[in-house]
Amino acid sequence: MDEDGRKIKKMEICMMDVDGEKLCIDPSLPILKLISKKYAMLILLSIYGNESRSNFNNIKEHIPFSSSTIISQRIHDLERGDVIEKISDKGRIFYVLSPFGKRLLEALKPFVKMMNLSHEK
Amino acid sequence: MDEDGRKIKKMEICMMDVDGEKLCIDPSLPILKLISKKYAMLILLSIYGNESRSNFNNIKEHIPFSSSTIISQRIHDLERGDVIEKISDKGRIFYVLSPFGKRLLEALKPFVKMMNLSHEK
Repeated sequence: MDEDGRKIKKMEICMMDVDGEKLCIDPSLPILKLISKKYAMLILLSIYGNESRSNFNNIKEHIPFSSSTIISQRIHDLERGDVIEKISDKGRIFYVLSPFGKRLLEALKPFVKMMNLSHEK
Repeated sequence: MDEDGRKIKKMEICMMDVDGEKLCIDPSLPILKLISKKYAMLILLSIYGNESRSNFNNIKEHIPFSSSTIISQRIHDLERGDVIEKISDKGRIFYVLSPFGKRLLEALKPFVKMMNLSHEK
């Protein structure tokens, strides 16, 4: 198969039927990569569960035995991915979920629920 | 904070509110890691979109410029994770989604839809 043939095949196969629409998986892959990195989901949940804002020390406390270096790196990754935002309140730095980050957590709920049910069996 | 204190903090923070229930993210993390690996979602969609079964050559054709070594490895990972199953039909090997794999793709649809909408903006 030539290069164009392969690209057409790929465009056919990336598709998922969602509510009667055919949607390509490609836009989901970079964010899947990001949230699967070590501590990424726990950082998001630290913010989400901590009155919707956490500073670095809150996050570090919420994740037992975690490495400060990796947490710093991951906070930076999540900021770059527009999942969280850094805000300054009276000279103190906090992290909040971005509007995209809020929609992301919401959209992941059916997956989290399914995995909990599968886990119980 | 001592070790037990940290563990309690972690148990509080791993939780997400889903349909009025508090569910821990932990059972979701290994599968998130698995499906975020290179080609993993495309292999699942190759099977899903190819009359629900693909052999190695189908998968390889569906993913342009892919490495046979990584595809083999990923098929093995997905089998070990119980997301796909190997079946033999008249002496030929095919891969199908496991019941868990079917539920997984279904549960990821809201996420895929949200990412497509975010991508269009």
